Amino acid sequence: MIADPHPSGLTLKAAGRDNAAMPSTAPTPLHTLLTHGPLLLQAPMAGSQGSALALAVCQAGGIGALPAAMLAPEALTQELTRLSQGTNRPWNVNFFCHTPPEPDAAREARWRETLAPFYAEAGLDIDAVPAGAGRVPFSHTVADLVEPFRPPIVSFHFGLPAPDLLARVKGWGSVVLSSATTVEEALWLEAHGVDAVIAQGIEAGGHRGMFRTDDLTTQVGTFALLPQIVAAVNVPVIAAGGIADAAGVRAALALGAAGVQVGTAYLCSDEALTSPIHRAALQSEAARHTQLTTLFSGRPARGIVNRLMRELGPLNPAAPAFPTATAAIAPLRAHGEKQGSGDFSPLWSGQNARGCRSAPAADITRELLQGFPAVARHVVIFRATARALDAEYSATAAQLRELALTRFGCLDFVAVTEGDQEVALSYWPDEASIRAWKQHADHLMAQQLGRERWYAGYSVEVAAITRHYHRPAPAQA
Amino acid sequence: MIADPHPSGLTLKAAGRDNAAMPSTAPTPLHTLLTHGPLLLQAPMAGSQGSALALAVCQAGGIGALPAAMLAPEALTQELTRLSQGTNRPWNVNFFCHTPPEPDAAREARWRETLAPFYAEAGLDIDAVPAGAGRVPFSHTVADLVEPFRPPIVSFHFGLPAPDLLARVKGWGSVVLSSATTVEEALWLEAHGVDAVIAQGIEAGGHRGMFRTDDLTTQVGTFALLPQIVAAVNVPVIAAGGIADAAGVRAALALGAAGVQVGTAYLCSDEALTSPIHRAALQSEAARHTQLTTLFSGRPARGIVNRLMRELGPLNPAAPAFPTATAAIAPLRAHGEKQGSGDFSPLWSGQNARGCRSAPAADITRELLQGFPAVARHVVIFRATARALDAEYSATAAQLRELALTRFGCLDFVAVTEGDQEVALSYWPDEASIRAWKQHADHLMAQQLGRERWYAGYSVEVAAITRHYHRPAPAQA
Repeated sequence: MIADPHPSGLTLKAAGRDNAAMPSTAPTPLHTLLTHGPLLLQAPMAGSQGSALALAVCQAGGIGALPAAMLAPEALTQELTRLSQGTNRPWNVNFFCHTPPEPDAAREARWRETLAPFYAEAGLDIDAVPAGAGRVPFSHTVADLVEPFRPPIVSFHFGLPAPDLLARVKGWGSVVLSSATTVEEALWLEAHGVDAVIAQGIEAGGHRGMFRTDDLTTQVGTFALLPQIVAAVNVPVIAAGGIADAAGVRAALALGAAGVQVGTAYLCSDEALTSPIHRAALQSEAARHTQLTTLFSGRPARGIVNRLMRELGPLNPAAPAFPTATAAIAPLRAHGEKQGSGDFSPLWSGQNARGCRSAPAADITRELLQGFPAVARHVVIFRATARALDAEYSATAAQLRELALTRFGCLDFVAVTEGDQEVALSYWPDEASIRAWKQHADHLMAQQLGRERWYAGYSVEVAAITRHYHRPAPAQA
Repeated sequence: MIADPHPSGLTLKAAGRDNAAMPSTAPTPLHTLLTHGPLLLQAPMAGSQGSALALAVCQAGGIGALPAAMLAPEALTQELTRLSQGTNRPWNVNFFCHTPPEPDAAREARWRETLAPFYAEAGLDIDAVPAGAGRVPFSHTVADLVEPFRPPIVSFHFGLPAPDLLARVKGWGSVVLSSATTVEEALWLEAHGVDAVIAQGIEAGGHRGMFRTDDLTTQVGTFALLPQIVAAVNVPVIAAGGIADAAGVRAALALGAAGVQVGTAYLCSDEALTSPIHRAALQSEAARHTQLTTLFSGRPARGIVNRLMRELGPLNPAAPAFPTATAAIAPLRAHGEKQGSGDFSPLWSGQNARGCRSAPAADITRELLQGFPAVARHVVIFRATARALDAEYSATAAQLRELALTRFGCLDFVAVTEGDQEVALSYWPDEASIRAWKQHADHLMAQQLGRERWYAGYSVEVAAITRHYHRPAPAQA
């Protein structure tokens, strides 16, 4: 059976938007994105990965992401160059769009006072630490660097940039995504023009994307958040939080997600830059206990519980506003890691670190892709005029069909005969499967018999399916 | 295609347990339970429902539950009588198994001091309130009442009763369930003999089942908890928390659940005893914001945020140990509700109240059952010796097969012929579908032709499928 290439009704939703906004003949960037197959997004993870992970994910059929929030201009340009030259598949570059806080000397002093005992223990001089921003928000200056690359996707965390800046990103053709942690945030993002919403459940690792509230009690699990956002908005919804394997992908799609975003499962991949200390924690029982903490940046982010979180309390009010908390933590972290300790390191992790494997990111990607329904993306159209169809013909036809379906990944095989006209359609996930099947000895033999005996003539077309409609819509599975 | 009646490999897991413990010919209570179809459990909700809801759920094909923790002995006997006489399907009776706290006059005084301003505002006399326990744990005295009814399922919250008491429950043949909120609790429950674990994600409404920790930061979302527990234990796992509709059921099964437990979606059903104030809150936007609170009982439970939670803080340390907090809240609650206010009422709700409908519980149950794969529970075995199979035979056979599959709910139809021997197997979800199909005019006509013309003889058996194995196991869907 041919699975719907847009299992969550994406085509219809997107078409609905088109009808309102522009002639339906003009495909949007989102439409174009959706022709590239399953929406499996690797979550951008600043500090733990760069273009190498993103490229490995793309090459295996996912959508890799470059976390740009902590990259200096030269590094950003270099990474964007690598990505744009390294893959023809869609990729994503992620920016933060927080408003940097006013300097607050009193709060900074209180923070340093809170950390002083740890500095003393480590023999470090707290007065030598410069107060620093750490992370800069997306800006026109950054956009100047990005524009020449016209990234297929630009995603934002902590809301969206100002309207003129957002218009610029959409103007150069990027699909725009942002994270919602509540139904209200999802509605706000839709009203402000995102192409799709990332529903970030409480299970997710790293920074909460929350931007319309700072009340942590509003943050809910993926099982509750995802279906509520799907019901509330008309744009596609991408599920994030707790998805670690193909079963998780299937569950998210069952709840109405158009795609998924997976982070933690990639943290121990070969291409990630995750530190050995962080990797060890992710693969230990310690990963069963994560907490939201503001200690490492000033905003709540989920990480494995460590000494700093235990001793200060993960939400200690002394931590100054995002992103200024980071500066005074950095020397403690560096010192601790030199001793082989993660006591002062942000050990970002979602609540489900079970997917963390030391493996090539391509393997992890392919495993996750198993969670999407098999999608027919190519069709082989065989049309023939019969000459003499004998008993051997029937047996051979049945056998070839069986072979295609059971051994070569064919997704469906339909043959219709009327008078001397025959049409056979076979559906395939990729061209490699078609080629493999065509080279099988039985297939070559049948071809020869067809030419010599059965057919007066025939034609074969291989075609890539670009759109697909159902009436009625298929049931979600 | 015939769906596996035990989509999560339940049969194999249960058989594994058998092999270790007893001859595999003796079906366990769990085995027997599993022949009754999908494990759709209605969550016991003390104070919001009794046997009427449980019976309605059972009659529609789910597994209803009686919350017994707040029932006096006479009421418990009455409710158990109603349940056992009202249905032949499995049902569940739920008990708490906390250890009642020592009386603590100082803490009670502090609690009353905290509540005094609310009493003053309401014109109520706090000194007239008796300190009371409110909820009693399961005991041999309670077991004496329950034993004559031999409930098909007994479920516990807050762990398990003492070993001798648990042995007594298992001894009279009940399937025993209990809730786990962490992997560690699930392992503990398995080691102590539960037949299946209920994995209670953070989304769930009402009391957290937590019993091996009181650290709320250990509590995680269903997307993270469920697959981790499924991987950790060898007993079936029932998912709870955030499941509100058939899509939620499909998602839970995709994550490896053997069944689901659904509470909040039943709170507005016709048969629930939920107050009008509580119903109104569940169906309003207020239900988007729930919190874990200890104010109403002393243990963390999830409810919609109301005045008491806002003004005291939902986890105010003044609330005394479970279940003693309840006594001093009760008069405020009663007074408030008389004024039409839920300011002092526990408005229990999960994080996903989207499923709350004012509808018969049977409708809600049938909607949820759609989330389980269609299961072949009956097979019709037709065996015949052919006499004269003509062209009309082939056409009729094909047409009847088509009719069964497309119009009468037949799940699979397989016919095999060798020489003059024919065997046809058709698979059906229920006997009613079989009867309807057999009474169709085309079927009756074929029967007549079969007797008169095609067959020397034939036999038909209708059989109920009680077990079903796959090799290899089917992919989880």
